[in-house]
Amino acid sequence: MSQTSPPTSQSNLSHSSDEWSSWVSTHLLRIESALNQALPVTSVKPERLHSAMAYAVNAGGKRIRPLLVYAAYELKDQVTQGVTDTTVDQTAAALEMLHTYSLVHDDLPAMDNDDLRRGKPTTHKAYDEATALLVGDALQTQAFEVLANLDAPAQIRIDLVKELASASGSTGMAGGQAIDLQSVGIALNRAELEQMHRMKTGALLAACVRMGAILAGLTDQQKKSLDQYAQAIGLGFQVVDDILDVTQDSQVLGKTAGKDADADKPTFVSLMGLENAQTFANDLNDQALKALDAWGKEADSLRQIANWVTSRKH
Amino acid sequence: MSQTSPPTSQSNLSHSSDEWSSWVSTHLLRIESALNQALPVTSVKPERLHSAMAYAVNAGGKRIRPLLVYAAYELKDQVTQGVTDTTVDQTAAALEMLHTYSLVHDDLPAMDNDDLRRGKPTTHKAYDEATALLVGDALQTQAFEVLANLDAPAQIRIDLVKELASASGSTGMAGGQAIDLQSVGIALNRAELEQMHRMKTGALLAACVRMGAILAGLTDQQKKSLDQYAQAIGLGFQVVDDILDVTQDSQVLGKTAGKDADADKPTFVSLMGLENAQTFANDLNDQALKALDAWGKEADSLRQIANWVTSRKH
Repeated sequence: MSQTSPPTSQSNLSHSSDEWSSWVSTHLLRIESALNQALPVTSVKPERLHSAMAYAVNAGGKRIRPLLVYAAYELKDQVTQGVTDTTVDQTAAALEMLHTYSLVHDDLPAMDNDDLRRGKPTTHKAYDEATALLVGDALQTQAFEVLANLDAPAQIRIDLVKELASASGSTGMAGGQAIDLQSVGIALNRAELEQMHRMKTGALLAACVRMGAILAGLTDQQKKSLDQYAQAIGLGFQVVDDILDVTQDSQVLGKTAGKDADADKPTFVSLMGLENAQTFANDLNDQALKALDAWGKEADSLRQIANWVTSRKH
Repeated sequence: MSQTSPPTSQSNLSHSSDEWSSWVSTHLLRIESALNQALPVTSVKPERLHSAMAYAVNAGGKRIRPLLVYAAYELKDQVTQGVTDTTVDQTAAALEMLHTYSLVHDDLPAMDNDDLRRGKPTTHKAYDEATALLVGDALQTQAFEVLANLDAPAQIRIDLVKELASASGSTGMAGGQAIDLQSVGIALNRAELEQMHRMKTGALLAACVRMGAILAGLTDQQKKSLDQYAQAIGLGFQVVDDILDVTQDSQVLGKTAGKDADADKPTFVSLMGLENAQTFANDLNDQALKALDAWGKEADSLRQIANWVTSRKH
């Protein structure tokens, strides 16, 4: 939880800093509890796989994706028929499990070969490669299973499954990772780099917002403006990641710093320089906030998340 | 298609051998066409990933899982509201994609480390490990996406997603694989070996039958008797696999023969001997056929598949 310190920027917000801190704490408690309920019980066979799944999920992430679900859900005018707080909690948990699967697989020796994640041994280091492979596989399945079994009308559940699948497959997250792997040592231009990150990170972040919006019963028009918000923070998140990779040390990041530059991977910093990358991150934050202009204070949690994403230090 | 030669046993069947051959050919054409439509277009980015997904799916499998969907669907009394032949084709394709994902990951160096599958280089040999990892990941996602986008009522779609997820996750297929990995060099008893295979192979085969039954609009009672059929052929499939592993050479099998024995993995042959394993396979075939006693000739395709599974030579 120490990794989720709220941002200091308070411009254009009716939320006070205390209210935001309290919102974050409340929703972090909800997501941790929902995740523990959504994970298979570790005393059930195969115990080692189930314990490794829990290890991966409980490695202390920022939980940005679940928080986006909660924040988007706050835009509701009224309670959607058949949707309860539990429905929202479980949807948020499904998204974090899907995200965790991607981290576990990305860390494998055949991919990024990372030993540390959030300051802890990666799943294949704490267990073994075969188990980490199955952890990722089973977490992906579990994410879909949780959505399919939500306490919500079938139409809402199927809409959520569609969003998650379309964001995470070969033209979304997994596809972005494939392009990333092929880009080592290749000079991507900015449009190509943005496209890669839109798929690799942006698509799932956008899905979080859209899935919160589905639970909130928003219109297609409303969802569209939220897409602009999500695309901006998705890209902003990556730009800041690239900045932190060169400005912070491994201990602060909880993962190996300088890795992208070492691997000769294209980054926003290598492409546009540190200062321009920082300006770009700020521009993206402005774009995200602008996309929320039609909303009042009910969108303040989304605004806070945008500020946090682009001002974070780890 | 040469790998799908129909069985010779015709006991208790009103189907002639020609009718069965023709049924298999017709449905293989349907599934190949459905798979090609369900796969991402290889000219779309990321092209290499999409080409590798097609490579894995088109490596010439027996297509038993899709055939089970079609065969179970034939038990319908009348057409289910909102379900068309296309719905059935796409459901069958989703199951084959899910199965292919598991093969691609199982073949990876961290798991079974197999160079050959169905006589061709495995996906990580034809491409590379990172791509094969993503192929499996994306095929799993694609399977759920196809089901979520079926032309069928939302309730049917969500029921299908539930079945697929519950069969393939950590208490189904992926869990069985985890137990298998932990069992190298360990003396499992017969109950433990059966349990492992029920999860690793049986759960997904049973899901094929259940998903065909969902599309056919069958009652829970009817589905229950089909579960007994599916459990029996699932186990039968594995017993025959173990028999073929010691009696056939690699060329006939299209994969490395003798591998399980070499790896000191428990098998039905190592546990009960070759002759008893063959008797057990025949018993399981009888059990499968008995579970279909309540059905008339509409269950003949299911009966043929049971005979085929337990009498196959590769």
